[in-house]
Amino acid sequence: MKRACVTGGAGFIGSTLADRLSADGAEVNVVDNFRTGRREFVAGLLERPGTRLFEGDVLDAELMREAVRGCDWVFHLQANADVRHGLEHPLRDLEQNTIATSTVLEAMRAEGVTKIGFSSTGSVYGEPEVFPTPEDAPFPLQTSLYAASKLAGEGLIGAYAHGYEFTGLVFRFVSILGERYTHGHVFDFYRALRADPTRLRVLGDGRQEKSYLYVGDCIEAIMTAVGAHEETPGEAAVYNLGTDETVVVDDSVARIVAHMGLEPEVEHTGGKRGWKGDSPLIRLDCTKIRSLGWAPTLTIPEAIERTLDWFEANPDIVLEPEGSAS
Amino acid sequence: MKRACVTGGAGFIGSTLADRLSADGAEVNVVDNFRTGRREFVAGLLERPGTRLFEGDVLDAELMREAVRGCDWVFHLQANADVRHGLEHPLRDLEQNTIATSTVLEAMRAEGVTKIGFSSTGSVYGEPEVFPTPEDAPFPLQTSLYAASKLAGEGLIGAYAHGYEFTGLVFRFVSILGERYTHGHVFDFYRALRADPTRLRVLGDGRQEKSYLYVGDCIEAIMTAVGAHEETPGEAAVYNLGTDETVVVDDSVARIVAHMGLEPEVEHTGGKRGWKGDSPLIRLDCTKIRSLGWAPTLTIPEAIERTLDWFEANPDIVLEPEGSAS
Repeated sequence: MKRACVTGGAGFIGSTLADRLSADGAEVNVVDNFRTGRREFVAGLLERPGTRLFEGDVLDAELMREAVRGCDWVFHLQANADVRHGLEHPLRDLEQNTIATSTVLEAMRAEGVTKIGFSSTGSVYGEPEVFPTPEDAPFPLQTSLYAASKLAGEGLIGAYAHGYEFTGLVFRFVSILGERYTHGHVFDFYRALRADPTRLRVLGDGRQEKSYLYVGDCIEAIMTAVGAHEETPGEAAVYNLGTDETVVVDDSVARIVAHMGLEPEVEHTGGKRGWKGDSPLIRLDCTKIRSLGWAPTLTIPEAIERTLDWFEANPDIVLEPEGSAS
Repeated sequence: MKRACVTGGAGFIGSTLADRLSADGAEVNVVDNFRTGRREFVAGLLERPGTRLFEGDVLDAELMREAVRGCDWVFHLQANADVRHGLEHPLRDLEQNTIATSTVLEAMRAEGVTKIGFSSTGSVYGEPEVFPTPEDAPFPLQTSLYAASKLAGEGLIGAYAHGYEFTGLVFRFVSILGERYTHGHVFDFYRALRADPTRLRVLGDGRQEKSYLYVGDCIEAIMTAVGAHEETPGEAAVYNLGTDETVVVDDSVARIVAHMGLEPEVEHTGGKRGWKGDSPLIRLDCTKIRSLGWAPTLTIPEAIERTLDWFEANPDIVLEPEGSAS
């Protein structure tokens, strides 16, 4: 790979992927509007020769054309990641996930760039009947605007692969943990406990089972799939990315609390779901990506510990007031 | 039902549904921009007391709010139906199907209207492994922009049902035939043979199997599902709508040719698919809608004959130059 474009390239997963691509010898075009992406995450990368920053929005068609020009691969990781509050902003997922994916694909088509990797989500399976859930599990109607918008993005990628000879790799992620992780359960719990070490409010009944994957393992899986699809024009493929384990929310709370040396009073808001559209259990069958030779290197508890270590080493990032500019 | 809104209400299926709703005693708000809808199709309806016409685009948020205000049900049938040429206009399906569905849902939410029926398509199943294909068949990645945009609309409806207590009925249609049918295989073949009775060009190898359903049976199925979901807030349900038969493209050609008394030379362009994204076989398992007591009244050959009779009675509509204003 000579040059790659990473949207959301200053975000948690995007900047980690961009670093890896650069380390592997590719020049990287980073697209980010720094709404949730952070300048610290790309400071090192931007000093490397060949890295270019395209500061702006993925919905900006002209910017995206410039950003994908001359690239071998585009990794479209930018997304509205505020899954939980989707119902308060029903157009945000449509715009920032579905329409943005269309904008990226159109920019690629205009520039003759045809290989795309896309970050989707295991929550497109809704509340599946089969665990672990394989890629070809039956689909229910979607229950969250986030998952609906990601499934719409998958559909566009499939149609571009079939219609315009694109190569499309759709990655259905579980939740990702590790260095630069700045939103989600573990982050929220850590911050809440820093603010008030005496109590912790847990959404739902605490029995929701979640799957996590270490960010380094996630990037390795993406690179493995890319290696297998360098010469498959017209093909779109879906890969579940996760571990074979799950962790119960209350158990990850216990681990965080122990790591911090605290004994808070834990209060559960009750109910099977943390919020409307929350999946009480996500566990993905990752046989397909494993068949390419990939396997995760960290267990979920190890990934949680790695994340907590990073939190402690980066209080300026983790503990900054919510909504402050990055 | 006291008042209903029908988008695409001057179109083939929309105007037929609007007539039925009005005959059943509902007042009807018709939304249509008359791009493919036709004034002839709603002329009678508009003379009935209580019918209101909202002339304009479904993407017009303000118009849609006015159109759904005070309605018990919204039937969102407007769509870009130019399935075959999707690749020439890759944004059209996104705008007119996906984004338009979001606009309709947002208008409903703003006006406190929560029941929606939506016309989706059996082509969301792609090239399924199971025939007849049930509603919970595994999903492949989408292969056409049209099906991708319809699946995106389904996802939005599911998310609104789950998140905002909407009732969502998703109807996955096979191709519909009957009075007012003005696009698709049978229409194209009839027009081509009228223009040149000596030859007919058939896309693909002519062996593609298609399912059709008579429009009157389609409307009856919709009304049956509506009756079953008057009091199911928060629920989204999918219903396949079709017959248990299929017809091979060449056989429907033979029927049309015989009906017209012609003996053209039939030329096949070859290949399993008529066009990129075409499904070589669609046959839906309609057990679910049948379990509510519905059954089709016409066979596919009868529906084709009914359609041809209507063509012959309406040469002014069927034979007008393509692209002429209606």
